[in-house]
Amino acid sequence: MVMHKIPMYKAKAYSAASATSSLASTTIVRRDPIEHDVQIEILFCGVCHSDLHQVRNEWREVMPTVYPSIPGHEIVGRVTKVGSGVTKFKPGNLAAVGCMVDSDRTCPECQAGLEQFCRNTTLTYNSPDKHLGGVTYGGYSESIVVDERFVLRIPSNLNLAGAAPLLCAGITTYSPMRHWGVTTGKKVGVVGLGGLGHMGVKFAHALGAHVVVFTTSPNKKEDALRLGADEVVVSRNREEMEKHAGSFDFILDAVSADHDINAYINLLRRDGNITLVGAPEKPLAVAAFGLLFGRRSLSGSPIGGIPETQEMLDFCGAHNITADVEVIPIQKVNEAFDRLLKSDVKYRFSIDMASLKST
Amino acid sequence: MVMHKIPMYKAKAYSAASATSSLASTTIVRRDPIEHDVQIEILFCGVCHSDLHQVRNEWREVMPTVYPSIPGHEIVGRVTKVGSGVTKFKPGNLAAVGCMVDSDRTCPECQAGLEQFCRNTTLTYNSPDKHLGGVTYGGYSESIVVDERFVLRIPSNLNLAGAAPLLCAGITTYSPMRHWGVTTGKKVGVVGLGGLGHMGVKFAHALGAHVVVFTTSPNKKEDALRLGADEVVVSRNREEMEKHAGSFDFILDAVSADHDINAYINLLRRDGNITLVGAPEKPLAVAAFGLLFGRRSLSGSPIGGIPETQEMLDFCGAHNITADVEVIPIQKVNEAFDRLLKSDVKYRFSIDMASLKST
Repeated sequence: MVMHKIPMYKAKAYSAASATSSLASTTIVRRDPIEHDVQIEILFCGVCHSDLHQVRNEWREVMPTVYPSIPGHEIVGRVTKVGSGVTKFKPGNLAAVGCMVDSDRTCPECQAGLEQFCRNTTLTYNSPDKHLGGVTYGGYSESIVVDERFVLRIPSNLNLAGAAPLLCAGITTYSPMRHWGVTTGKKVGVVGLGGLGHMGVKFAHALGAHVVVFTTSPNKKEDALRLGADEVVVSRNREEMEKHAGSFDFILDAVSADHDINAYINLLRRDGNITLVGAPEKPLAVAAFGLLFGRRSLSGSPIGGIPETQEMLDFCGAHNITADVEVIPIQKVNEAFDRLLKSDVKYRFSIDMASLKST
Repeated sequence: MVMHKIPMYKAKAYSAASATSSLASTTIVRRDPIEHDVQIEILFCGVCHSDLHQVRNEWREVMPTVYPSIPGHEIVGRVTKVGSGVTKFKPGNLAAVGCMVDSDRTCPECQAGLEQFCRNTTLTYNSPDKHLGGVTYGGYSESIVVDERFVLRIPSNLNLAGAAPLLCAGITTYSPMRHWGVTTGKKVGVVGLGGLGHMGVKFAHALGAHVVVFTTSPNKKEDALRLGADEVVVSRNREEMEKHAGSFDFILDAVSADHDINAYINLLRRDGNITLVGAPEKPLAVAAFGLLFGRRSLSGSPIGGIPETQEMLDFCGAHNITADVEVIPIQKVNEAFDRLLKSDVKYRFSIDMASLKST
């Protein structure tokens, strides 16, 4: 593809040079905002497990990483410039960007506001960049330029460091709960209390459900209750598990490690659903009888569309929901990756991008 | 439990004396019809794979077989006597009985007409008999006595031999199609063209869907088209499979043998569902990504409730749908079991119970 020369500017960023490199300070180019573009100064960027998978090329079979790789898709910041055709934003506004920066906009999925299912999405990082060639660069940088259709509004009452993870961990857990009808009076389980799970607990609670957290670590009990759980079940305790057999309307399964899904399927009531938002590497062993008895279903759900992401952010504004974060300077991001692998974070790292100025 | 002496009568039947015995002629007792009972002279009884599992005690872990065992839950016949409180039937009417002859009638499932999910159903065979003690005896017999709440009406235009399998194979395939919204314009797959699958094809076609049959046997193509399929795909042909990727609204999986479910999950469009009506012995290996991309779901479905079974029979009356059957005398039932194991039947055996008179 021949790229016409388009106006660009330089921006500081943190990038990985190869699958085995640490992230390090670098300079990238961004396009100057064109007609429908919004330029955002990035204030906070959440650290998602996907960032780590991508820079280490752990998804090489489905999405091989192009280096240098600049991750980050939980972006909040302030608008610094807008193109002439932009109507929703003006300089000074708070704004956010999630996992997608473009899509084909014409397919039935896009027309339904379900851009996450478009076959031609441009992801925020490591997707072909339609404007500059190469691949897109994510939020571990000073600024980003995105078409306004993919820019979200952030309610002004939210803590910005805690708001950043809403753009991936938030929408990923909010969307399936809405899709499967979580509301007042429903009994909802959340399996795995990490970055995704802790958002699941907050949303299920705010939606009015009776929330039960399943965990392998009894020491997470107090924290689960603080986050909004009504009950905590230690999943290795068979007796405790059996007390809940056939009683759940919906279970959010946020565990990426190999685990016994049948134990949770059996906790669903008739027509209950369990949705995977984590993606274990090995196939799950699913016993047919657990699904047959009770017409239960097992499904998966990836992030959410742009309209629903805005709905989620507005819901967070109304209920004052943000992620529980540990704020770090960008200089500590490699250490944060290591700690992420040990689940040593409550519950999400959020990078204070002001730290990038001093690199 | 002490049983009070209640009026009974003798009836001819075919029973298995042990897990390794052939079925043989015997005499059983049935209760005389009480207030809400309907006594039915059995004219035809379908041969379901469950009959074979039960008499051979292959479900010993979940439903151990009590001997003598008299299977049969695809029953059609003519009413011979009714209790004083019966309002829906009178002697001479056609009538049918499926997999259930009672339930607790008071739980939320029963009140919703979803008796198949009641925790206290009395199955047509091998369930504790509330009236006579011991276990219930199924349809491989001259007559049966059932509470009218569990007796169905048979449209008079249907061939009775072919109508019998509707009571299990029919409702098992009809119910999930209705539940998951199969209707005009939907694209529906049917995996496995046996007793269940061939009914699935007929229903999907009659409901107005575009029907694709998946089979491992290219020689089933012509028959699949005759039954109502619009297309036939040989599932081992990867290229043919890939042409259908992401295009199905619903897939009925009627295969009880171990098989690659992911190949079918990947054929579903966004929000598509695949429902298991067969129950493979080994857990299915389910790849999470197939469910995540497209918010697809995998579920199971067991038979159907009494109101929906009546709806299905009325639908069959309106569309003149019956199972394709090979009619056999009861004396050939052991041979039929052996042929069933080799899938050597198109597509269901139906026992002409008149043959029992000559034993």
